[in-house]
Amino acid sequence: MKIAIVGAGSSYTPELVFKLGETASRLPVTEIMLMDTDEKRLSVMGGFCRRYAKSLGYAFAFGETADLKEAVAGARFVVTQIRIGGNRARTGDEKIPIAHGLIGQETTGAGGFMKALRTVPAMVEIAKSVEEHAPEAWIINYANPTGIVAEGVHRATKAKIAGLCAGGMFPALWTAAALGVPAESVRYDYAGLNHMNFAYNITVGGRAVTEAEMEKIMGQVGSVDFGLLKKIGAVASPYLQYYFHTRKAVEHMANAPSTRGEQVLGLEAEIFAAYADETNSQLPQALHRRGGGGYSEIAIGVMDAIYNNTDRFMVANVPNRGVLPFLPEDAVIETACLVNAAGLKNLTLDPPPKAVWGLISAVKNYEQLAVDAALTGSRDTALLALVAHPLIRDYDIAKPLLDELLEANKQYLPKFFEG
Amino acid sequence: MKIAIVGAGSSYTPELVFKLGETASRLPVTEIMLMDTDEKRLSVMGGFCRRYAKSLGYAFAFGETADLKEAVAGARFVVTQIRIGGNRARTGDEKIPIAHGLIGQETTGAGGFMKALRTVPAMVEIAKSVEEHAPEAWIINYANPTGIVAEGVHRATKAKIAGLCAGGMFPALWTAAALGVPAESVRYDYAGLNHMNFAYNITVGGRAVTEAEMEKIMGQVGSVDFGLLKKIGAVASPYLQYYFHTRKAVEHMANAPSTRGEQVLGLEAEIFAAYADETNSQLPQALHRRGGGGYSEIAIGVMDAIYNNTDRFMVANVPNRGVLPFLPEDAVIETACLVNAAGLKNLTLDPPPKAVWGLISAVKNYEQLAVDAALTGSRDTALLALVAHPLIRDYDIAKPLLDELLEANKQYLPKFFEG
Amino acid sequence: MKIAIVGAGSSYTPELVFKLGETASRLPVTEIMLMDTDEKRLSVMGGFCRRYAKSLGYAFAFGETADLKEAVAGARFVVTQIRIGGNRARTGDEKIPIAHGLIGQETTGAGGFMKALRTVPAMVEIAKSVEEHAPEAWIINYANPTGIVAEGVHRATKAKIAGLCAGGMFPALWTAAALGVPAESVRYDYAGLNHMNFAYNITVGGRAVTEAEMEKIMGQVGSVDFGLLKKIGAVASPYLQYYFHTRKAVEHMANAPSTRGEQVLGLEAEIFAAYADETNSQLPQALHRRGGGGYSEIAIGVMDAIYNNTDRFMVANVPNRGVLPFLPEDAVIETACLVNAAGLKNLTLDPPPKAVWGLISAVKNYEQLAVDAALTGSRDTALLALVAHPLIRDYDIAKPLLDELLEANKQYLPKFFEG
Amino acid sequence: MKIAIVGAGSSYTPELVFKLGETASRLPVTEIMLMDTDEKRLSVMGGFCRRYAKSLGYAFAFGETADLKEAVAGARFVVTQIRIGGNRARTGDEKIPIAHGLIGQETTGAGGFMKALRTVPAMVEIAKSVEEHAPEAWIINYANPTGIVAEGVHRATKAKIAGLCAGGMFPALWTAAALGVPAESVRYDYAGLNHMNFAYNITVGGRAVTEAEMEKIMGQVGSVDFGLLKKIGAVASPYLQYYFHTRKAVEHMANAPSTRGEQVLGLEAEIFAAYADETNSQLPQALHRRGGGGYSEIAIGVMDAIYNNTDRFMVANVPNRGVLPFLPEDAVIETACLVNAAGLKNLTLDPPPKAVWGLISAVKNYEQLAVDAALTGSRDTALLALVAHPLIRDYDIAKPLLDELLEANKQYLPKFFEG
Repeated sequence: MKIAIVGAGSSYTPELVFKLGETASRLPVTEIMLMDTDEKRLSVMGGFCRRYAKSLGYAFAFGETADLKEAVAGARFVVTQIRIGGNRARTGDEKIPIAHGLIGQETTGAGGFMKALRTVPAMVEIAKSVEEHAPEAWIINYANPTGIVAEGVHRATKAKIAGLCAGGMFPALWTAAALGVPAESVRYDYAGLNHMNFAYNITVGGRAVTEAEMEKIMGQVGSVDFGLLKKIGAVASPYLQYYFHTRKAVEHMANAPSTRGEQVLGLEAEIFAAYADETNSQLPQALHRRGGGGYSEIAIGVMDAIYNNTDRFMVANVPNRGVLPFLPEDAVIETACLVNAAGLKNLTLDPPPKAVWGLISAVKNYEQLAVDAALTGSRDTALLALVAHPLIRDYDIAKPLLDELLEANKQYLPKFFEG
Repeated sequence: MKIAIVGAGSSYTPELVFKLGETASRLPVTEIMLMDTDEKRLSVMGGFCRRYAKSLGYAFAFGETADLKEAVAGARFVVTQIRIGGNRARTGDEKIPIAHGLIGQETTGAGGFMKALRTVPAMVEIAKSVEEHAPEAWIINYANPTGIVAEGVHRATKAKIAGLCAGGMFPALWTAAALGVPAESVRYDYAGLNHMNFAYNITVGGRAVTEAEMEKIMGQVGSVDFGLLKKIGAVASPYLQYYFHTRKAVEHMANAPSTRGEQVLGLEAEIFAAYADETNSQLPQALHRRGGGGYSEIAIGVMDAIYNNTDRFMVANVPNRGVLPFLPEDAVIETACLVNAAGLKNLTLDPPPKAVWGLISAVKNYEQLAVDAALTGSRDTALLALVAHPLIRDYDIAKPLLDELLEANKQYLPKFFEG
Repeated sequence: MKIAIVGAGSSYTPELVFKLGETASRLPVTEIMLMDTDEKRLSVMGGFCRRYAKSLGYAFAFGETADLKEAVAGARFVVTQIRIGGNRARTGDEKIPIAHGLIGQETTGAGGFMKALRTVPAMVEIAKSVEEHAPEAWIINYANPTGIVAEGVHRATKAKIAGLCAGGMFPALWTAAALGVPAESVRYDYAGLNHMNFAYNITVGGRAVTEAEMEKIMGQVGSVDFGLLKKIGAVASPYLQYYFHTRKAVEHMANAPSTRGEQVLGLEAEIFAAYADETNSQLPQALHRRGGGGYSEIAIGVMDAIYNNTDRFMVANVPNRGVLPFLPEDAVIETACLVNAAGLKNLTLDPPPKAVWGLISAVKNYEQLAVDAALTGSRDTALLALVAHPLIRDYDIAKPLLDELLEANKQYLPKFFEG
Repeated sequence: MKIAIVGAGSSYTPELVFKLGETASRLPVTEIMLMDTDEKRLSVMGGFCRRYAKSLGYAFAFGETADLKEAVAGARFVVTQIRIGGNRARTGDEKIPIAHGLIGQETTGAGGFMKALRTVPAMVEIAKSVEEHAPEAWIINYANPTGIVAEGVHRATKAKIAGLCAGGMFPALWTAAALGVPAESVRYDYAGLNHMNFAYNITVGGRAVTEAEMEKIMGQVGSVDFGLLKKIGAVASPYLQYYFHTRKAVEHMANAPSTRGEQVLGLEAEIFAAYADETNSQLPQALHRRGGGGYSEIAIGVMDAIYNNTDRFMVANVPNRGVLPFLPEDAVIETACLVNAAGLKNLTLDPPPKAVWGLISAVKNYEQLAVDAALTGSRDTALLALVAHPLIRDYDIAKPLLDELLEANKQYLPKFFEG
């Protein structure tokens, strides 16, 4: 079985290789095809992965290519982890909004919007290639913004895509940490969008948690006020802090000496120096400071459930199909699913907390406009997307902000600068 | 036929009396019962209305009462124009939010919320009285926030209510002004909520307006950027300025020497002095500076259509019933209706502009929580309402703001201070 | 103003001419273009209409043409009353189902299906011509089955169509007859499909009828058991007799000496002989026995409301758009509308009686398959349509029945006999 | 762990005991409480079960009781397999409709309706007892009509109920038989109601079956015409034969020397004689001729998934919750679910075949009226239920039929004979 990793130059690739080795008894991968358009990073990563796998006793055959068709043809799974413009573009996504008094963040707000404009067309190109050259393959995506990317791919292609985010496991992990139970015993209703979601009706081994237990679980969230969570009646994605504590977050960002992207740039240099060292076959220390792990576990969980046809409760980004009646049928939502060989089917839910459906709607409206803008290159639609975003909304702010963001990303957005 | 005017101490009452006289051939009103809890204003207004009607040659029999049951019993229509706390409470609604860096406005944002908390229980009390003592009567409401009030009354009673706003006629008036056509020839789709709505598919005598004509009509709106309206593809309620031009509006309010409420307080003193002058039977000059007229025309239009069973296209606040699929079935929306003796039935619509459904959803979520809070006196729900409001949202702002608003309105909100 | 009458060879044409003359002050028609593919009937009708109009003192200019484009170009309204295959085809629609032990009827059951297969493609052709040559014109259709025809035209064209049926007025007429009130004072909720509908929430001058009054109104329906109507809680289209009293109706039809179509064939011969008599300018006596009048009143009511932009409550066949949540958004339903220059907008309704939504759904499923079959010429879809029809359903009956029906209509159904 | 079996006098009980023994490693049942109101059958079954379990080496402690509270208190699962009126009442359900020219069948048509009237109140009583005395217990129901029973229990109580039917596994079993693949590898969309359902989008190990394979699978259905299934594009419950081949089925039933119920009465006598033989500890031969097995496998599958919190794809009867948009939110449907400790959650589906949604709607309308009638004892509602049923519909047939059915079941239907 062949797996393709698109965007293999990512520093996360070795973690995925490690996990694939660990689960070889369930996922009999023989070939890992590394694909990246940055041939230098690809070459470094190819070398390291071979040394690393060898040191672990894994027998994978690694390939390297910059050609999409070669990468995906014959693959059973295509793992996508691309980052168009790299962490350098990311720092722009962060700093430009901050300069306008807004949240400057990789996936939320104007920064996430700009990342969407860069990423959706690239992911659609990948998906079209999969559609043509590996129509039975599943795309396992964790390129962000993963919900917007999934909606773009669903809209423009028929490729099979599992849009994943580590956040889907958080309610289980929080419950496990708060109550001392195995995460595997936890189930919940989970409603909303990527980085804009709420979990409720939490059960442990089928038993509904008590109110006191629920408060302990809420205590794990951290980044959203505990009193607010109690009133809402659900745990929330940590990214809700940018909505419910905007002023504090903006102040914090405005006063921070560097953005997260800038920090990562430094870390990545350190990490890649270690990867490039031909005498080294161990994961670099700096990787722990990099954060963002956990994706590979979910990615492999999905591949396992699909490959082995084992029914499994998982959270993913899938078309709504009537589960959230206040959103369009075809809107991609992040929600609880049954995953098996037949794919991802979302489950019916109790209605989400009565205080948050409007916020979810507002963000989904923005997301659908962002997909429209990314697929068409329309500046008007892009501006409407920013105005529809609850964190921006003010036309007088959005208009100059958009101009600045587009200009800064000119090289990645040819459609916006045609004609 | 008897008409009751509840909140008859309002300075708008004479305008209504004038219009009732003008349409006597269609609405054979014989008795006008003035009701107000402020007996001093009631007495002044009773005196003036009698002199005014006499001067116009109208033969109405006027009654005065502070008793709700006496007012509504036997009435065919109950016109409600109450203002709990008067313009003094209104200035608090404006100034407290401004002090927190927010929009301070009578119907929009935190100010509108506080007005809702004061008004909904009072209107429910009136509606229950109508339900009991005049079950066939129609409540013709223009007490604000009219959409929230209508939803509260629908939720708590079975009384018949027409929730009106002059804004429902604006698209016709703008089209008439822009194109030189009669307002009566204009029809449109109209979607959204009170003070949060959009009109599109405008026709004149059945002919769809051209793109160039539509731009002329958009040019009439004034308070929302013309370029934004063009991108949205609809005309918008002028109150959208508080959403799309928040920063400017907040700055303007913060720097204004006085709020609208404060100005009105002054005007009202002047107006009531004139009303109280027993030698005077003419409308005071200051009334023109008071603004807000036009309600009586719509109110009488609705009464005419109901009384005479003439089918008539009008905009009103009614339960959604599936017309806007992204809102709950029972959510009150402001939309195009057919009005006749059988009541108000909303019409199906083309979907509203693709850029605004999320904003409408977010505001409706707030509104439903505001109704919940007003009916129950729950501080938790009140706080969730402020957090759900797109113009507030930040929990760290909402929490102290709510405390301050409730404290300032303590005398009008007994439910919030029980136990 | 020009009006085109397509299918002008119909015996109903003079009635329409008469009504157009009567309403000349509201509908200033100058030219009536008669169009028919049967040039002999057209010529007879042209001659009679001229004599008839002259005798009435009407100044219409009549034209005659067999050319569709010539007929519709420049028209403000295109009245369609075609009958493909004439009453001869109709007798087949009646007699073949009867021979299979089924309801044999012009619009209901297998007979209505066959009429749909013949009529939908012809109406789509007309609508496409209107779309091209008179895009602002309204098609005023009363060719049956009018609901299926409207759905076919909506699906295949963008032409404006008002799908009418005299049955939409029945609840008003029954109420007027039962209670001695003017039909104009009556309003109601009206839900369902053409010839498959229910009216309830009846008001007279805005006052809900009492239970006793409702029973009197139900007593007017006649063809559906009174006790059943009381249990259902609504008045019903008389065509419901074919669903609720199937056995009796089938027996009656099987034992009748002739079908309605056969009777009409005789009457039409008599009527046309009178029309052809060049000395005659009066409506023939036999027309009263022909029945089916009343259409022209509704047709002219709709044209009046559109032309003069007078808001008017009327029943018509329009896309559902969420009003009946158990039917698809785009399914054409027969329901209460507001008609004015902007067109037909259906009104929101209270849910229909709890005992009938499943039957309405079943018939709508059939209707949508009938439209599919008519537009594609697919025998498989045609068979599924018959199986979906509640009056047929049995595959062992439907299969040979379909073969026989198609064979009998071969000349009118080229798509079904291609390849 | 205690399991209660309500209706333990059923001849199926030993099969369930056998399976519980087989799966002891996953379901550590220690106590099996047999409950029945027929104390004679209960005693026979208790004796046999003890001998049978002992012969198999199972260590269950058996209890016997006629008291519902004693049966359910402390139970983890309450398996319900009641048959009110026994097979004697069933023969009436079959023979009375046949005498009226209708399908006479245990779960479909008028017979199923009568069974529903007897069974729903009894199941609601059991569910209320579970709600009170074992609120965490799951009711595992296979008393028929299982969909109607589930809706009745959901409407009247908050007890947890899994409404099961062996038919949910048929698409997997047919696919396994047709293609020689393991049933466990098969997944599908499954839409409709109990005994009124369709499966499509069949996959084997995640691979969509080919058209040729689908035809082979359709070939397994048997009781519905293969050509019709191809046109529909799905496999169908064998009970669809009563809808699509009504005439043949009615003829067959009218000419059969005995009904299925009569045959079962004979078999049951034989089976119970064997059970009562105190020297016998083996399953009687006649049980194979009894049919209807397979339920226990599904019942235990559900209990396993709930007890062990293993995610599992299964078909069950659950509230719709938006999955089938043409049915009410709260309508119980039979559909694909994820089962785990948190309960049963239905999955989103592709829309069912375009030719069958109307039939499903019609039957669901009947089912909801049947639940209404069963819960209220209203003869009017009962009559509307029969008229809403696609296999009856004719009021002239339904009216005398209902009288006869009620009279024959008088002893089981006290609510219908009160007052």
